[in-house]
Amino acid sequence: MATIITVSREFGSGGRELGKRVADILGFKYYDKEIIDAIAKETSLDEKYVEKTLEAGIGAAVYPMTFAHSFCYIPYINSNYLEILACQNKIVKSLPEQGDCVIVGRFADSVLAEYKPVKTFVYADMASKMERCRARATAEENYTDKQLIKRIKKIDKARKQTHDMYSSTIWGDKKNYHLCINTTGVEIKKLAPVVAEYLKVYIEANK
Amino acid sequence: MATIITVSREFGSGGRELGKRVADILGFKYYDKEIIDAIAKETSLDEKYVEKTLEAGIGAAVYPMTFAHSFCYIPYINSNYLEILACQNKIVKSLPEQGDCVIVGRFADSVLAEYKPVKTFVYADMASKMERCRARATAEENYTDKQLIKRIKKIDKARKQTHDMYSSTIWGDKKNYHLCINTTGVEIKKLAPVVAEYLKVYIEANK
Repeated sequence: MATIITVSREFGSGGRELGKRVADILGFKYYDKEIIDAIAKETSLDEKYVEKTLEAGIGAAVYPMTFAHSFCYIPYINSNYLEILACQNKIVKSLPEQGDCVIVGRFADSVLAEYKPVKTFVYADMASKMERCRARATAEENYTDKQLIKRIKKIDKARKQTHDMYSSTIWGDKKNYHLCINTTGVEIKKLAPVVAEYLKVYIEANK
Repeated sequence: MATIITVSREFGSGGRELGKRVADILGFKYYDKEIIDAIAKETSLDEKYVEKTLEAGIGAAVYPMTFAHSFCYIPYINSNYLEILACQNKIVKSLPEQGDCVIVGRFADSVLAEYKPVKTFVYADMASKMERCRARATAEENYTDKQLIKRIKKIDKARKQTHDMYSSTIWGDKKNYHLCINTTGVEIKKLAPVVAEYLKVYIEANK
């Protein structure tokens, strides 16, 4: 059975870079954006649209309404979101056929639970996440600090919400992961080799 | 300034063994029971009594009483506990003078905050903690499963309560630690070398 390493991560924590570097060191396949591309191909939807829809999650939009003289919000679920999510699950489930791999996000820890993946969670403090977001921002992404904090929190909230659809565990709760990695104040490229060595111990124990 | 590694841990998670092995690998001093011995010496109290009092924590005993026709419990604070705790803090604060070290428990992450310690939290699932407790139990410690679970939870609750006296952070919340290590299903002796390598990255970044 293929060895699966899953990388759940807070937005801006460097989980993606860490996952890629660890996969390279271990000689494992690496899946992240590749899954978005595959969804776009299968659904004939635009890649950017797929990415944005998955990022926004289920609680993406709400409609205001009044009910029994009270003002409230009714969540709006983009029906494409559910279709995209179903397609994502199908693709994620097919990945172990290709051999040992590192999968970043995509709720792979829950979707591939039967493979007993080695599960990691990558996190950092807000200042560190903001710095990382700014460093990789495109010219159009010109957020104020307040806007950036709001964006980081919103994306993580969406990840948590979608996680809750798959699992009764709490997203980010350390007991659901083999290793929780705080990237605050450390370079990912220095962390990657030690994380890889670390994961080997769990891979061995899992066999 | 001395490098301090702190090991906070759930009872039965193997944090003590991991801390000792990591200290040996890094060539650091190691403090755990040594602190109990020093407190006993300084307060002229019995070592076992010091250990048990610290283990029980502040919520060790409660007195039942009625108040305004309601039945309630009033916490009983062993005055020796506060004396022992003050002595413990004094000793922990003096440890960095002796050089680089690993300190297991003793709320050293809060007491020595000014040294910016590299902070770890060691945890495991309940079955794994019970197994570890049984493996190291003395002949007199003959708990049923229910009693053992109660004991593990009680000790961790006391640790959490005392932690709350020192810090506004949440005991065991991953964001307060550089690394959270799940020892479920892995041998501590296999984990120790990779944890040591891992901590070197944080030690380097902290300098």
